[in-house]
Amino acid sequence: MSDTTRPRIVIVGGGFGGLEAAKSLARLPVEITLLDRKNHHTFQPLLYQVATAGLSPAEIAAPIREILAKRENVEVLLGEVVGFDLAQRVVKVRGFELPYDYLVVAAGATHAYFGHDEWEPLAPGLKTVEDALEIRRRVLLAYELAEREAAVTGHHPPLSFVVVGGGPTGVELAGTLAEIARKSLAENFRNIDPAKTRILLVEAGPDVLNAYPPDLRRSAVEQLQHLGVEVRANAAVTDVRSGEVLIGKEVVPASVVLWAAGVSASPLGRALRAPVDRAGRVLVEADLTIPGHREVFVIGDLASLMHADGTLLPGVAPVAMQQGRYVARQIAADMAKEPRKNFHYVDKGSLATIGRAAAVAQFGKLHISGFIAWLSWLFIHIFFLIGFRNRIAVMLQWAWSYLTYQRSARLITGESSVPAVTSMEYAERAAKALDSEVSRDVPQREKLAG
Amino acid sequence: MSDTTRPRIVIVGGGFGGLEAAKSLARLPVEITLLDRKNHHTFQPLLYQVATAGLSPAEIAAPIREILAKRENVEVLLGEVVGFDLAQRVVKVRGFELPYDYLVVAAGATHAYFGHDEWEPLAPGLKTVEDALEIRRRVLLAYELAEREAAVTGHHPPLSFVVVGGGPTGVELAGTLAEIARKSLAENFRNIDPAKTRILLVEAGPDVLNAYPPDLRRSAVEQLQHLGVEVRANAAVTDVRSGEVLIGKEVVPASVVLWAAGVSASPLGRALRAPVDRAGRVLVEADLTIPGHREVFVIGDLASLMHADGTLLPGVAPVAMQQGRYVARQIAADMAKEPRKNFHYVDKGSLATIGRAAAVAQFGKLHISGFIAWLSWLFIHIFFLIGFRNRIAVMLQWAWSYLTYQRSARLITGESSVPAVTSMEYAERAAKALDSEVSRDVPQREKLAG
Repeated sequence: MSDTTRPRIVIVGGGFGGLEAAKSLARLPVEITLLDRKNHHTFQPLLYQVATAGLSPAEIAAPIREILAKRENVEVLLGEVVGFDLAQRVVKVRGFELPYDYLVVAAGATHAYFGHDEWEPLAPGLKTVEDALEIRRRVLLAYELAEREAAVTGHHPPLSFVVVGGGPTGVELAGTLAEIARKSLAENFRNIDPAKTRILLVEAGPDVLNAYPPDLRRSAVEQLQHLGVEVRANAAVTDVRSGEVLIGKEVVPASVVLWAAGVSASPLGRALRAPVDRAGRVLVEADLTIPGHREVFVIGDLASLMHADGTLLPGVAPVAMQQGRYVARQIAADMAKEPRKNFHYVDKGSLATIGRAAAVAQFGKLHISGFIAWLSWLFIHIFFLIGFRNRIAVMLQWAWSYLTYQRSARLITGESSVPAVTSMEYAERAAKALDSEVSRDVPQREKLAG
Repeated sequence: MSDTTRPRIVIVGGGFGGLEAAKSLARLPVEITLLDRKNHHTFQPLLYQVATAGLSPAEIAAPIREILAKRENVEVLLGEVVGFDLAQRVVKVRGFELPYDYLVVAAGATHAYFGHDEWEPLAPGLKTVEDALEIRRRVLLAYELAEREAAVTGHHPPLSFVVVGGGPTGVELAGTLAEIARKSLAENFRNIDPAKTRILLVEAGPDVLNAYPPDLRRSAVEQLQHLGVEVRANAAVTDVRSGEVLIGKEVVPASVVLWAAGVSASPLGRALRAPVDRAGRVLVEADLTIPGHREVFVIGDLASLMHADGTLLPGVAPVAMQQGRYVARQIAADMAKEPRKNFHYVDKGSLATIGRAAAVAQFGKLHISGFIAWLSWLFIHIFFLIGFRNRIAVMLQWAWSYLTYQRSARLITGESSVPAVTSMEYAERAAKALDSEVSRDVPQREKLAG
């Protein structure tokens, strides 16, 4: 099938950058192999909707090979890249190796715990479909356990969700959790009142959404508060324990802790043995290659590149996609024996959603907040979703959810065991009770009701 | 919240029977607690669509407490029932106990391996959302591993899926897998031809769909063959091993084995210490109670009751639902000091789907096959789906899938590790390769292409 006289291009990663590179490169007379550890591309901007039970995974993720099915010179392989031999021009994948003429590394980033990896099981982040399902499970399970505790014993400790990190992901998670607590779960419980759930958004810096101008940051805080989120700025989380977090020296109870604070680049950045920044991002040249290897491009969240004004390009989809297309143009230039150009990011604006009818948006000098910003956010994101069917499905879901407040994917799936993840006092007691043999000592409703 | 003077009814299980009992009982002046191990009701007739990537879990499952939200005298608790104290009238749940005046046990059934529980990890059955996602993962992974093997080495052993059991579940799984292989995956692969996948349906008895009349059984076999399924009747599976099954003494290679052969009632049937049949179903009285306990009802797949003609009532949703409503009427009769009536099942017909535009249906003396039967099946099942939103969503999905052959939930989720589940020669080799360190000995495409 492959034409061995054509340049072979290996792309590592099927995120926004890798996928866009593959689509653009497919127009050239080249042979492309895209490698990913997952079989699907994840539309990360809507992942928080899976975590909060509004959408199903299949509505925001699609098989990479289906997306690229019509590009006959693109082959998609499931595989975990473990390293590179830049001298031999070979990608090392677990189990096999792939030679290349050009390499595009778009392996992305994951969450970072600032040297506290022991917090990870207690405070999951949100980068993959699996992460989102785990968060959904913990949030829903917290309500289930509280209801059960209250049903059996007549009382339960207050429910409290702590979101660490006031960037776009933290803001949208906190806002949506508040909507669930105040609206979606109404009438669903008999022994607890979900509307009393405390939703705490903790940000170490002075402001949430610190990439936005001051007026929009203030608006974001007001919109969050209106939705019922307690915003704590200048508040550093110093420890995460089972059932609680420490903010400075203050102990804050936490049924569920979600992590949206730090970003760490894929270890494949360091595997390239090129210079990296503190987060592990590769310090790329002006043409997105690594020093001494004009044939090796690094794009997306894994690349570290400055704006003309000296600030770092943000880790967002538009940057990665523009870089993917840019790489294709440079390879085309090489093939035509033309000189390469430098990469320039064209910033078309930025939007962050906060919750129901709440968002902020900046398009150049135009700053908007609230419903109009939210509608812009909604339509832009649905427009960029992969696949016509998904666009229709997500739009219908959204309309339904907007009109009814219902969140239709409220499933607790996975292992049926109840780990100590809901991590509150009652959860721990429940977990202990679950482990103990059933005996005459277990709580029985009558005794307590009497 | 609960009125202690009203009869307390505990329902175990939120399937078709338990849910229908709860809805009907909610009209009476009683206090109801519904217990389930899962937070969601699963619409089992469409579970095979999740297993074959056509639908998402949330489209066929809904939170039990959401379904019952408007019934204020119904409380839903997440909990695993471990036993009963019939003398004290107490349900023992892991961690707590619930007293009752009436008990309705609707705990259902699971798959049975006829004394070969060691086959379970090699041949998953289809009863829960988790089962369906595991099957989906194995099927999709089998194609991914074959593509990778062929890409690296230039060849791959033939793909072969074996479905054990020719009842409704086995038939719909086999038919849909054939559709995926022949149609949905076209153009998705570069190194393998999914259309060459062998789909084998193995039935120990003389016929598939043996609950149907002979003409419909014959039609089912023809429709299966038309879809590309190889039907093997009178073929007993004697062993399931990694990568192969034994049919009699014949070794049949199997990339994936799916189990749809046996049914075993919930162990809660035996926990009632009433007489049970060989499958563990409780031999209930004519009013669906157990001997000596007029306050304990057993319904649905867990109950064993004969038709008037001496045949066993089938384990299908209509039986469970009629029994749920029947129980409510008998408890109402008790409360009104009126006599109970015996349960009679009203058979309104039965339908089995086979695949795209293929099905059989029996309504009394009317037997239909093919497209019309399939349309009937489709509309009846969508009509009975829980929730208006899901009905619309599933109908749109179906229309989309029918027109485009696309299956939109083709996600491999869960642990990223590749276990030996695809269980063919190449899968085993791939797994070994995955475990081994990357070295110069691993296959590299060039060497083989040369």
